[in-house]
Amino acid sequence: MSPKITTELLKQLRQVMKNPKYVQEPVQAYIVPSGDAHQSEYIAPCDCRRAFISGFDGSAGTAIITEQHAAMWTDGRYFLQAAHQMDNNWTLMKMGLKDTPTQEDWLVSVLPEGSKVGVDPFIIPADQWKRMSKVLRSAGHDLVPVKENLIDTIWTDCPQRPCKPLIMLDLSYTGVSWRDKIVALRSKMAERKVMWFVVTALDEVAWLFNLRGSDVEYNPVFFAYAVIGMNTIRLFIDGDRIMDPAVREHLQLDSTLEPEFKIQVMPYGSILSELQAVGAGLSPKEKVWLSDKASYALTEAIPKAYRYLTPYTPICIAKAVKNASETEGMRRAHIKDAVALCELFNWLEKEVPKGTVTEIIAADKAEEFRSQQKDFVELSFATISSTGPNGAIIHYKPVPETNRTLSVNEIYLLDSGAQYKDGTTDVTRTMHFGTPSAYEKECFTYVLKGHIAVSAAIFPNGTKGHLLDSFARSALWDCGLDYLHGTGHGVGSFLNVHEGPCGISYKTFADEPLEAGMIVSDEPGYYEDGSFGVRIENVVLVVPAETKYNFKNRGSLTFEPLTLVPIQTKMIDVNLLTQKECNWVNDYHQKCREVVGAELERQGRHEALQWLIRETEPLVRVQ
Amino acid sequence: MSPKITTELLKQLRQVMKNPKYVQEPVQAYIVPSGDAHQSEYIAPCDCRRAFISGFDGSAGTAIITEQHAAMWTDGRYFLQAAHQMDNNWTLMKMGLKDTPTQEDWLVSVLPEGSKVGVDPFIIPADQWKRMSKVLRSAGHDLVPVKENLIDTIWTDCPQRPCKPLIMLDLSYTGVSWRDKIVALRSKMAERKVMWFVVTALDEVAWLFNLRGSDVEYNPVFFAYAVIGMNTIRLFIDGDRIMDPAVREHLQLDSTLEPEFKIQVMPYGSILSELQAVGAGLSPKEKVWLSDKASYALTEAIPKAYRYLTPYTPICIAKAVKNASETEGMRRAHIKDAVALCELFNWLEKEVPKGTVTEIIAADKAEEFRSQQKDFVELSFATISSTGPNGAIIHYKPVPETNRTLSVNEIYLLDSGAQYKDGTTDVTRTMHFGTPSAYEKECFTYVLKGHIAVSAAIFPNGTKGHLLDSFARSALWDCGLDYLHGTGHGVGSFLNVHEGPCGISYKTFADEPLEAGMIVSDEPGYYEDGSFGVRIENVVLVVPAETKYNFKNRGSLTFEPLTLVPIQTKMIDVNLLTQKECNWVNDYHQKCREVVGAELERQGRHEALQWLIRETEPLVRVQ
Repeated sequence: MSPKITTELLKQLRQVMKNPKYVQEPVQAYIVPSGDAHQSEYIAPCDCRRAFISGFDGSAGTAIITEQHAAMWTDGRYFLQAAHQMDNNWTLMKMGLKDTPTQEDWLVSVLPEGSKVGVDPFIIPADQWKRMSKVLRSAGHDLVPVKENLIDTIWTDCPQRPCKPLIMLDLSYTGVSWRDKIVALRSKMAERKVMWFVVTALDEVAWLFNLRGSDVEYNPVFFAYAVIGMNTIRLFIDGDRIMDPAVREHLQLDSTLEPEFKIQVMPYGSILSELQAVGAGLSPKEKVWLSDKASYALTEAIPKAYRYLTPYTPICIAKAVKNASETEGMRRAHIKDAVALCELFNWLEKEVPKGTVTEIIAADKAEEFRSQQKDFVELSFATISSTGPNGAIIHYKPVPETNRTLSVNEIYLLDSGAQYKDGTTDVTRTMHFGTPSAYEKECFTYVLKGHIAVSAAIFPNGTKGHLLDSFARSALWDCGLDYLHGTGHGVGSFLNVHEGPCGISYKTFADEPLEAGMIVSDEPGYYEDGSFGVRIENVVLVVPAETKYNFKNRGSLTFEPLTLVPIQTKMIDVNLLTQKECNWVNDYHQKCREVVGAELERQGRHEALQWLIRETEPLVRVQ
Repeated sequence: MSPKITTELLKQLRQVMKNPKYVQEPVQAYIVPSGDAHQSEYIAPCDCRRAFISGFDGSAGTAIITEQHAAMWTDGRYFLQAAHQMDNNWTLMKMGLKDTPTQEDWLVSVLPEGSKVGVDPFIIPADQWKRMSKVLRSAGHDLVPVKENLIDTIWTDCPQRPCKPLIMLDLSYTGVSWRDKIVALRSKMAERKVMWFVVTALDEVAWLFNLRGSDVEYNPVFFAYAVIGMNTIRLFIDGDRIMDPAVREHLQLDSTLEPEFKIQVMPYGSILSELQAVGAGLSPKEKVWLSDKASYALTEAIPKAYRYLTPYTPICIAKAVKNASETEGMRRAHIKDAVALCELFNWLEKEVPKGTVTEIIAADKAEEFRSQQKDFVELSFATISSTGPNGAIIHYKPVPETNRTLSVNEIYLLDSGAQYKDGTTDVTRTMHFGTPSAYEKECFTYVLKGHIAVSAAIFPNGTKGHLLDSFARSALWDCGLDYLHGTGHGVGSFLNVHEGPCGISYKTFADEPLEAGMIVSDEPGYYEDGSFGVRIENVVLVVPAETKYNFKNRGSLTFEPLTLVPIQTKMIDVNLLTQKECNWVNDYHQKCREVVGAELERQGRHEALQWLIRETEPLVRVQ
């Protein structure tokens, strides 16, 4: 990887930072955040402005350019990658290290008095604007919105914003019609006494209208906003995709409907002016509900006194609790996904010893097997296919420069998943195709104990996921080992593989309580730098638990694994497991054998079935 | 308990709420918070204004009086007590229940448009003022400071503010001189570029100057403020106690000192005007450091641009990490405390069967035994001495109306502690003097498993205490049981029995990471309403742990119990313990026997020694 040469680009940017065509007054600093106008985790190529200006294309990072400096803030996952991808014009700001200044503090330390700091108001979330603006103002500077994105002015070959056809999901997938979702949303609005709700997150728009898209890689979403009133529905979306008769039928655009369910379709770009019109027409006590992560531009469109901001929207919370149709779809998707992985691992077992399988080949093979399954749409994230030392790089993605050949001497870690029309998968397995060392088995077994501790945990209704995080670490901690990432994230239903508002992490305190029907991942790990990585990940469904005393009728919850892929028993040091843990593994493998076995049989995949049967032989504790 | 009749008092209060002698403009509502001007947990009788106006004297509660209403907000611990103590003039607002409005929302719902809501600016913390003021303002009302406390104007027989003699602690207790503490504080101030630090919490003033007092029951503190500049020290304190030659010597008031260590003594009541003078004299960039819990009055004395507010002060953080002298003192105090409890339990074992021991007699006896120990000062909180159903009332304190006689048929729960000149104790033991039922033993054993899970937990340096809370609950959760309080709190060194900034609770996220030298309690419980309560509490010291892999030199921590009082083995269902848990109990009892046994021997308390030896017989697992 050679760094991108950015000298000329930075020169051009610094010129437009003073150009009255774009800025009312010159700005002394310009912030280039990671995200798009919807605060998406995965963004379209046209939104990769930070990567364009710096060369650094990791998923998280903020660039700030001043007259004299160009600095990039990113976190521990990306220190190495950012250092490789950026040239000497850039200073890497390692977030999470003690001496690294915050963006605000750094700006205060380098800017001349009374500076203006510019940012695209559509890209910066309102809560972040508020925080930065406060610090800058107290130091005598000003954060100012620059309407035209300055990167776009110098990005001559910027790709077009994608505008791909829409996918309609019928009731058999969604369980609830978009009309009923609007009714439920309006009832939440009435509860909070708000008159309008602005849908800004792409997965929330997609979920609400039972539509999917492919404007962004991995996330089946499309560029759109929506504004829901108590009597109106406005959908802001571009392109002739809305002319597709099937889409018009799905949204009942040409039907005679009660006015409150009539969808008005408007251009994507008109959201700001339409919202400003809404804001200008509000009567006293009429509130508008927005996520506090919505862009500063849209938030400002509503006068402050009329805003109702929450960290999680009612759609985000409703979307997280899967109904019976969604849960059944997720189950089906996970069985198909398991079939693909049984095929893959059976294939790897035969091919790896030949020395011809690289990380990239393995990842491609995984995609190939998945794509043979019914309703396969695309991958749900970039496959992490990593062997040996690459496994210790938590967000590794194999590229030709780093591509390593799998062998019988190294651990192989595969974290992968797919979008099927009936569900989203995300699974990590760590395998050895030769003989693992005692230390590798020891580490794997601690990670497995942590995985089981979360998966088998029983907890009262109303418990937040972050309270379970330490269960995943306890066995590692006892031996002085740990991993520096959270234990789990919410998973969408044929939607984003990472979604709020629940999760299992020591870092999250604003998570919503776990409820039956929520779906999260359970993925503890251990990483030995320069040597190997271990992670064991299942997607699990929150289900009611049976307990002896049932929390005085408060009710209790536990998890049911949706992922049904064998955990390599060769990697387990059985004597480090308790009998209870041993039983958990055996019960899990029994279920894999029964459920996935039946599907392998049905699909006539006999060799993979034999592999599954071999891999699910019960463990026996010697002690 | 009959309720306090408050009709006349409320009438008088509503008159002064309109009396121009006290308020610039009439206030339509008046807030009476729980606390004093230092946001103390335990308050002096003269500060019990909320109890005076309402009759409700629990430790937490806020009263709001309007023309038409009188309402009291308190939490689940006090619903019953508040309902008993208040007459019909009052509405009880049960905090934590879904339908209970916040104080602000309630005010907005009952007040006429454009109302003024008054509060004593010395008693309301700045962060709370900010939150309330914002909500009220957005609804068209105003939160206004009322300088004269309106309760004081109608409280004709209000007790005097206490002004008791001071206790000086020499280096053998504190380990660090007040002078060195000032030096360390100034270095923290320099790091953060602040010129002044305002000490508002009573335990922080006491700790900083190595002084103790007895102005407030249970907490060995005295009414004072301090303002520390880079070159000045001002101590605001009343009474002739500062004329005591020993105090003058301790503070070196009459010595020739470098000016930056010369303490200027000023009247307690002059803090506001002095701070206003400091505020008025600040040059640009000169900041003043205050806790964000400091009163609104003192916070407002410093212009906003000059304030530096943090949730925890550098004194709070320094105070939490005990040095070798303090740790040794705490160890001594806990051994003496264990001696007293061995005497008590030995005595109870003989006396309870006679049917003559009530909860109050038992509590008094505990105090009597403690008071025989060297350097005993007072209790560290009101003894919770509770038997049978009273044990299920988490913050129970026996009074004649509820006083129950201990018997061989009910569980007895004793949560008690003392202040010794060398340390503060807090211990809970749950005992049965007859034969416990299988269910009682089962519950006790789950609580014990939780206690051990925390006490024996190993975790990496930098872990926050709230991440350990679920360890205490896991065994209970597995059977559908839980307890509705946190698992542990910080403990002072001959100071407040509850102190920040660390703790172990599902509720606290702003806690500071645990460090070696910190001292917390470990006190899971289980409460069966109307039947019994179980709690097992030790005070534990955070110590470095030995682990196989030591977190790549990040280092690891665990706990060492300071409390050394036997845990009643009769209450344990040994077959529910793992071998590891069983060993923990046996090792703990072995240590109790050795350490406390030696002290009992030294003090010639032979009968209690025999009791200790009987109670520390090793457990044997049958399985």
